[in-house]
Amino acid sequence: MSTVEQQLDDLQAEITSELPSDISVSSVKYEGPELVVYTRDPKEFAQQGDLIRKLASKLRKRITVRPDPSVLSRPNEAREEIMNVIPDEAGVTDLDFHADTGEVVIEAEKPGMVIGRHGSTLRDITKNVGWTPEVVRTPPIESSTVSNVRSFLKQERDERRDILEKVGRQIHREEMSDDEYVRISTLGCCREVGRAAFILSTPETRILIDCGDKPGAEGEVPYLHAPEAFGAGPETIDAVVLTHAHLDHSAFIPLLFKYGYDGPIYCTEPTRDLMGLLTLDYLDVAAKEGRTPPYDSEMVREAIKHCIPLEYGDVTDIAPDVKLTFHNAGHILGSAVSHFHIGDGLYNVCFSGDIHYDDTRLFNGAVNDFPRVETLVLESTYGGRNDYQTDQEDSEEKLKEVINETYEKGGKVVIPAFAVGRSQEIMLVIEEAMRNGEIPSMPVHLDGMIWEATAIHTTYPEYLRDELRDRIFHEDENPFLAEEFNHIDGGEEERQDVADGDQCIILSTSGMVTGGPIMSWLGHIGPDPESTMVFVGYQAQGTLGRRIQNGWDEIPTSEVGAMGGGNGRGTLALNLDVETVDGFSGHADRAGLENFVKTMNPRPEKVLCVHGDERSTQDLSSALYHDYNMRTFAPKNLETFRFL
Amino acid sequence: MSTVEQQLDDLQAEITSELPSDISVSSVKYEGPELVVYTRDPKEFAQQGDLIRKLASKLRKRITVRPDPSVLSRPNEAREEIMNVIPDEAGVTDLDFHADTGEVVIEAEKPGMVIGRHGSTLRDITKNVGWTPEVVRTPPIESSTVSNVRSFLKQERDERRDILEKVGRQIHREEMSDDEYVRISTLGCCREVGRAAFILSTPETRILIDCGDKPGAEGEVPYLHAPEAFGAGPETIDAVVLTHAHLDHSAFIPLLFKYGYDGPIYCTEPTRDLMGLLTLDYLDVAAKEGRTPPYDSEMVREAIKHCIPLEYGDVTDIAPDVKLTFHNAGHILGSAVSHFHIGDGLYNVCFSGDIHYDDTRLFNGAVNDFPRVETLVLESTYGGRNDYQTDQEDSEEKLKEVINETYEKGGKVVIPAFAVGRSQEIMLVIEEAMRNGEIPSMPVHLDGMIWEATAIHTTYPEYLRDELRDRIFHEDENPFLAEEFNHIDGGEEERQDVADGDQCIILSTSGMVTGGPIMSWLGHIGPDPESTMVFVGYQAQGTLGRRIQNGWDEIPTSEVGAMGGGNGRGTLALNLDVETVDGFSGHADRAGLENFVKTMNPRPEKVLCVHGDERSTQDLSSALYHDYNMRTFAPKNLETFRFL
Ligand SMILES: [Zn+2]
Ligand SMILES: [Zn+2]
Ligand SMILES: [Zn+2]
Ligand SMILES: [Zn+2]
Ligand SMILES: [Zn+2]
Repeated sequence: MSTVEQQLDDLQAEITSELPSDISVSSVKYEGPELVVYTRDPKEFAQQGDLIRKLASKLRKRITVRPDPSVLSRPNEAREEIMNVIPDEAGVTDLDFHADTGEVVIEAEKPGMVIGRHGSTLRDITKNVGWTPEVVRTPPIESSTVSNVRSFLKQERDERRDILEKVGRQIHREEMSDDEYVRISTLGCCREVGRAAFILSTPETRILIDCGDKPGAEGEVPYLHAPEAFGAGPETIDAVVLTHAHLDHSAFIPLLFKYGYDGPIYCTEPTRDLMGLLTLDYLDVAAKEGRTPPYDSEMVREAIKHCIPLEYGDVTDIAPDVKLTFHNAGHILGSAVSHFHIGDGLYNVCFSGDIHYDDTRLFNGAVNDFPRVETLVLESTYGGRNDYQTDQEDSEEKLKEVINETYEKGGKVVIPAFAVGRSQEIMLVIEEAMRNGEIPSMPVHLDGMIWEATAIHTTYPEYLRDELRDRIFHEDENPFLAEEFNHIDGGEEERQDVADGDQCIILSTSGMVTGGPIMSWLGHIGPDPESTMVFVGYQAQGTLGRRIQNGWDEIPTSEVGAMGGGNGRGTLALNLDVETVDGFSGHADRAGLENFVKTMNPRPEKVLCVHGDERSTQDLSSALYHDYNMRTFAPKNLETFRFL
Repeated sequence: MSTVEQQLDDLQAEITSELPSDISVSSVKYEGPELVVYTRDPKEFAQQGDLIRKLASKLRKRITVRPDPSVLSRPNEAREEIMNVIPDEAGVTDLDFHADTGEVVIEAEKPGMVIGRHGSTLRDITKNVGWTPEVVRTPPIESSTVSNVRSFLKQERDERRDILEKVGRQIHREEMSDDEYVRISTLGCCREVGRAAFILSTPETRILIDCGDKPGAEGEVPYLHAPEAFGAGPETIDAVVLTHAHLDHSAFIPLLFKYGYDGPIYCTEPTRDLMGLLTLDYLDVAAKEGRTPPYDSEMVREAIKHCIPLEYGDVTDIAPDVKLTFHNAGHILGSAVSHFHIGDGLYNVCFSGDIHYDDTRLFNGAVNDFPRVETLVLESTYGGRNDYQTDQEDSEEKLKEVINETYEKGGKVVIPAFAVGRSQEIMLVIEEAMRNGEIPSMPVHLDGMIWEATAIHTTYPEYLRDELRDRIFHEDENPFLAEEFNHIDGGEEERQDVADGDQCIILSTSGMVTGGPIMSWLGHIGPDPESTMVFVGYQAQGTLGRRIQNGWDEIPTSEVGAMGGGNGRGTLALNLDVETVDGFSGHADRAGLENFVKTMNPRPEKVLCVHGDERSTQDLSSALYHDYNMRTFAPKNLETFRFL
């Protein structure tokens, strides 16, 4: 008998002995990081309010209870019972019964009302029908990404159960080594922004954290082939942890499966969905630009199938000697500060991922409060000594001014923006300003992936700032549903209509004017001296956005591409005003980074400054050393640091 | 056609075009790092004095010329001709013809006379007989190690030729990567003494430097299984470089072959022979102590078969992008400071190995003069702030005093000593003192491996200090042949006779009184109050030597072992005097280490302090940083540093 079998047998015996004699345990199984307890008495189990919580704390495991298939009521009967228990206002949109696991997935507009106070409604469901309910939110705005991911996972249910069982056995395997160390190897993202990838390793376990591309430098991929990465074989990597969905962290996650990786990806649920959206778009863009994509969409599906979603605050075993906890990072939807607890109190490492320290309209500021942290791996995008950003309040005032001025001139406002994060932030500013009469009410057209990204945001309001979350829960207050917002889904024809029509605001991707529908808007609106283009995000060196920002007023048609048109002489005259409003960054500025560290509880002993150019990482590293007396480093790629 | 075939074809064409028309080239081949040119006109080749040198500098390769087998004269005829050319005084003891390569190995007592002025006699041999002569020294003192190694290599000649050809192709393969970096990974020997092992890597090449054990901590082996070492497979290591034969650098070299390594080991010729001696003894000791040896003697033979001996100063291609040069390290016979030149002027790394900075009786001081060095990996055994040693002159005075005092009392002097290095140094001191009448002439008994190690020293006088080398060349002045020296080869019986006999000096292994014949001497001489035990080397914590040094005067018989006897009550009374004479260390002391760096030409930019305990490496690192303004590090095991 394998040690895992033995362990499960022992656990079953222990659980049985802890339970009242009228509750039987038919089997226990690992499913990913969870221990699933099958019982022939699910109703009795549900009756005893905090039995599961007590078991979980006694066994120090995450526990799920499911009915033994033999005692399940028939789905049709169960459906009726369930609908009786759940109040009508919950807005149930789908019920999906899985006889293999005894689970019923309930999709509802108001998941909170399905759950009930402290889970009372859920318990009532089990008490009445035996099935184990699992609740997901009906997207308030229809999202093809969310519905595709959900139906794909439903379709792959069997394989996914196998994956989870395999992962569970890996996690709960016996520890083999009696050595002790903790190491971090840098595979990218050091003294540069882009291609984030780190290996966290112990004698027992190796974890890959992020695996992104480097925008504008397609050849510079993470050093995955280094011996300390996949050189020793993909099976030597226990787990992948994805801090957030931005491509500089996620682009090559699907590639890992092409390389033979077959293990779990830990991330939040919104990160999973956004990764699907962004990597598929990444493949599209590569194909359009004539580059050979490094993997195909099949690999994106593989990646999604291997995702194990974790919520902020869940302490989760991901290896025999490693517990992972995600915390809000304030950067984009689902972005996570990733805390690793190694051994039994041996060592703690925190990867900031990308963070925003202060609250924004969309998100609460990054969490920096932990039980313990010895080493912090800190992003340094704006770590340079002069990298201070304008206050968002001032930026908002300026944006409103620009909109008002353009409106008075009779022109249109075109805002190139990233689909994920910055667009929603700007939407919130505009919606409030219109509601308060600070700017005139007019159509706000959302083009490119912005609408879809917004829909994903509204699917996961728990990941948004408290006030915003509460407003989304009340349909009539959901700011993203304001009547001014219009989804451009009619293609070039609709764009032509908008261009020919009344004053309006246009938010469109790509954010650096390097492709996408913004090229079309440039063709339509560019020549109009009454209109204004407003840059609200960082424009990288070498992008068209940067050149427009710097004063280019004639663009070769070849730059604008097929969508942009031109004037027949091969150039496009840019007569519109160009304005820059910064302060909407998703990244902490220098002050934010210092505050994150300064107020961090507890203070880390060591800080590795990464995800910033050479100057930023070195400036930040030396400032933290001098001001807070920490041991700090600005690593290079391909180095390995040992702690302990 | 492979790129190597193509390369060889091109080389053959180029060489042919460089040669006079009467010299043909029948083929060219790689043999390890050398390019071997086969010709049907060896005599004509030999006539043109510096043709080979010119070719070598033109092609930037090490070149050997050999006769095409078709033109070889018959060995019997050749033998006669060769003996005519070589002067009788050369003392030829063996001629060995190898028709497969056209080489004749000439073993002679005075190799210099076989070579002739600037190689003139060698050239004469080729001119007369066509065969290519190779010269080795007849050991002035018979050494079973040397003769075993030589006859083993002769017997394995065919396989060895295959190995060399394979290595040659590896070295001259085409470079695949266009990335550039230089990295050092630490697998052992950091913040500790023992288990030396480092990986030097570029995008193209990975080199293992040393692979030793940790005396007194058998479980602590180098981290060979780490992904950056053999985790990615033994075939990912291009070459092994062995700095010297001490077990803390060499013990696990044979183990590599058990793990599937099949590449070259670069070391000096004496290091190869001493490694054979010491690793076989290591297996013996392990067996005697009831430990399972990690490999068997077959693996020692594998290792020896894969050795490619290099001489000090030879600049040798060992990978497409790495040239290795050994320099005298002054530490033990054949010990080498290893200089790596990477890329074409890209970067230079120097591994000190173990060094002695000042001249000793046995060796010239370590070389610290190089064309270029950016990073130095420096041993730090005595790097602590107070690690200053007595001057050797003072130590010698003290040793002579102790000998004289003991002589006057009528006792014997017992000196536990390491077989390699320290024993020979003490022998030289004693020989000179007796010759000058500073101490009375009396028998000096050499027990354990000391005699054998001494014989190996006299086989390679080129590796000894100039003055000593010159004396060994004149048989009547060879200090190791002084009549006072007696090899204990009669076992316990002889020891009993010596113990019962007149006053004498005994040098015996092991150096830390942890086993070997010194245990027997302890039993014989220990109870005698007239005698003295003199410690001349470092006694590690936990060894019996250390405890005796600290004043133990009764030893449990169990400690002394079978050889030592006892008094029947289970203890052995130690009545002899105990003296410590330091200053004979093979390691530079703190001043020597600083001098090595201070006078180094050029000064390195970065220094990694290794091969010392935590305090020593950190003291030395911080001193070098403050005093010489270098970037210094005291790495931990399992870290990776990137340069460039
Ligand atoms: Zn990001
Ligand atoms: Zn970013
Ligand atoms: Zn990022
Ligand atoms: Zn040594
Ligand atoms: Zn050593």
